[in-house]
Amino acid sequence: MTEHDVIDLKVAGRRSEADEPTSPVARFGVDEPLRLDAGVDLAPWQIAYQTYGELNADRSNAVLVCHALTGDQHVASLNPVTGKPGWWQSLVGPGLPIDTNRFFVVCANVIGGCMGTTGPASSDPATGRAYALDFPLVTIRDMVRAQAMLIDRLGIQSLFCVIGGSMGGMQVLQWAATYPERVFAAMPIATAARHSAQNIAFHEVGRQAVMADPDWRRGRYLDEGVRPRKGLAVARMGAHITYLSEPALHRKFGRTFQDRHAPTFSFDADFQIESYLRYQGMTFVERFDANSYLYVTRAMDYFDLAEEHGGVLARAFKGTPTRFCVMSFTSDWLFPTVESRALVHALNAGGGQVGFVEIESDKGHDAFLLEEPTLFAAARGFIDAAAAVRGLR
Amino acid sequence: MTEHDVIDLKVAGRRSEADEPTSPVARFGVDEPLRLDAGVDLAPWQIAYQTYGELNADRSNAVLVCHALTGDQHVASLNPVTGKPGWWQSLVGPGLPIDTNRFFVVCANVIGGCMGTTGPASSDPATGRAYALDFPLVTIRDMVRAQAMLIDRLGIQSLFCVIGGSMGGMQVLQWAATYPERVFAAMPIATAARHSAQNIAFHEVGRQAVMADPDWRRGRYLDEGVRPRKGLAVARMGAHITYLSEPALHRKFGRTFQDRHAPTFSFDADFQIESYLRYQGMTFVERFDANSYLYVTRAMDYFDLAEEHGGVLARAFKGTPTRFCVMSFTSDWLFPTVESRALVHALNAGGGQVGFVEIESDKGHDAFLLEEPTLFAAARGFIDAAAAVRGLR
Repeated sequence: MTEHDVIDLKVAGRRSEADEPTSPVARFGVDEPLRLDAGVDLAPWQIAYQTYGELNADRSNAVLVCHALTGDQHVASLNPVTGKPGWWQSLVGPGLPIDTNRFFVVCANVIGGCMGTTGPASSDPATGRAYALDFPLVTIRDMVRAQAMLIDRLGIQSLFCVIGGSMGGMQVLQWAATYPERVFAAMPIATAARHSAQNIAFHEVGRQAVMADPDWRRGRYLDEGVRPRKGLAVARMGAHITYLSEPALHRKFGRTFQDRHAPTFSFDADFQIESYLRYQGMTFVERFDANSYLYVTRAMDYFDLAEEHGGVLARAFKGTPTRFCVMSFTSDWLFPTVESRALVHALNAGGGQVGFVEIESDKGHDAFLLEEPTLFAAARGFIDAAAAVRGLR
Repeated sequence: MTEHDVIDLKVAGRRSEADEPTSPVARFGVDEPLRLDAGVDLAPWQIAYQTYGELNADRSNAVLVCHALTGDQHVASLNPVTGKPGWWQSLVGPGLPIDTNRFFVVCANVIGGCMGTTGPASSDPATGRAYALDFPLVTIRDMVRAQAMLIDRLGIQSLFCVIGGSMGGMQVLQWAATYPERVFAAMPIATAARHSAQNIAFHEVGRQAVMADPDWRRGRYLDEGVRPRKGLAVARMGAHITYLSEPALHRKFGRTFQDRHAPTFSFDADFQIESYLRYQGMTFVERFDANSYLYVTRAMDYFDLAEEHGGVLARAFKGTPTRFCVMSFTSDWLFPTVESRALVHALNAGGGQVGFVEIESDKGHDAFLLEEPTLFAAARGFIDAAAAVRGLR
């Protein structure tokens, strides 16, 4: 079997993952449309998810984990596409801060995603082909609406906790703003109540890189048996820089050469950082759908929680019954602490119960996915205290 | 005439600008090779330049301006390709801080550039075709060696001042380190003594974007009558973000929509920032050669002034007779103040005369090109004082 065959198998695998995921799926028929902010009723549609732990008798111990831009529902178990551990296996599991011995943990692939929830890589029942750009644009609120319909389907009225970082944190905030009575506790991490101009700019460059690839075929690459690999890899490389910090890059890579002692005077990956980024780009295209990347980045760009409340963020949380723990990282320049502070001020102004932890770290935005003892300790403390108030053992 | 014809004319114009620029050119024959760090003797070769003002009788009033990555020799006069004013017309001119009534100002296109100095878009005399990737890799030191040969040709032994920002600042530092006796005063602005891992990373993404464009044709696009427009535009868009600051982007664009009141729920440029970036990308490809972009970014990546002095930057400037004025901008995250401070410490350790000005600005790296009264005042003060010591009127 050649390398190319392996890749083709992976592509075939990914395509079927979009329609027939290895995860449990909640399917909604034409009578249960998902009402999208774009003004479209999406139906039929489906949402793929994973659960860990057991729902207790009074259905009060459910924790919803919301994933970030390129994450998925495989938060604490082997990922069927990459074969790697779950993306938050350090935080979610037996005896861990989100303790699956105590809590029923749910994580669902977002609407617009490519891991089994309906998105641009899913088959359009009207044509039998992938939706591609015929899929309607989605928003963070649409992602949350879809999750709420899943939570209904699972028979859960109120979530004990909603937690997520980055785009996952946006969903946490949207949950608390849209369904305050359904969220007992909320933990938005390394996030913001709106996407900044700089972040929109970085996303736009990534989208243009994908669309510049002739193998994108105006989004119809799946029909034509190709993929915009180079464009998506460039998008991922650029984005990846924003997930790290300059000090972390300096510490990890500096100006160290890759497998050589002197520059080659060529365009080879002379520096370790180049070789690392190229690897990040190459591996990403094996696991992620390019159109999904366009849709999900766009959803983040559109996010502005204050906008639906006359520009006043505090109104989004007025009288909220939810208890919050907001976390940021000192070296995160994509979602800097100043954004978390603005959020905390708005929550305070809205009368909410808010804790705020700024974690000293040089690891940049990605710190929320890494081994950060302070994050784990703060999460454990907040969750244990909230569980005590909720009367959970 | 269609839009396409106009573009073709521009391409033709740019091609001839590489070989037969509208600027004065110093030509060096096979007996006067440019010795490159790559171990290659480049010959024949040429360097295109502009001058402003008059050289005085004792040839002591020459100021060399070094341009940045995508700049050129048209520092203070109309650019023949873009039809726009010179890129530093606010700083260089009669009565301005670099006063062309007093000084003889020289600015040359860098080696590897595309505005008349030999580079990958120039015709290779061996083949008659553009060099493309047959052009040897160049370094900042090579750029400075080429300028030194031009300065020799112009009959100038010692430069009164060498000044430049960003990559121009790297050349200033290399001048002072390589030819200390030929540099009376030096003004490196918004620069660093080495390119950081993060900056290498951003450059690598830009190069990969260019090379991912099928119209790049492994560098042979000029022969084939095409250009990697989309790839180069993506590279420019990404780079442009790094030239600005988050506060400036927020102030200038925020989340403001472009010509609309609500999102279109499409991949159109809904936000002003998107439309602005797309325009930056589109206009850049009209004036800059894609291969030059690869070469010149690579030269910056290779820059590490300490490396040629056993890793000790101070040794590069030991006993330097040059007087320095180092400047940085508070919101510049590409070449942050911490890099300028490291430089100042090294200059102090080397026994140099150093002034340091950190300018409060929210305009990011590009502040050095903009109307910054503090920059102008500091430049005027430094230059006037140095001129007095040098006995220049």
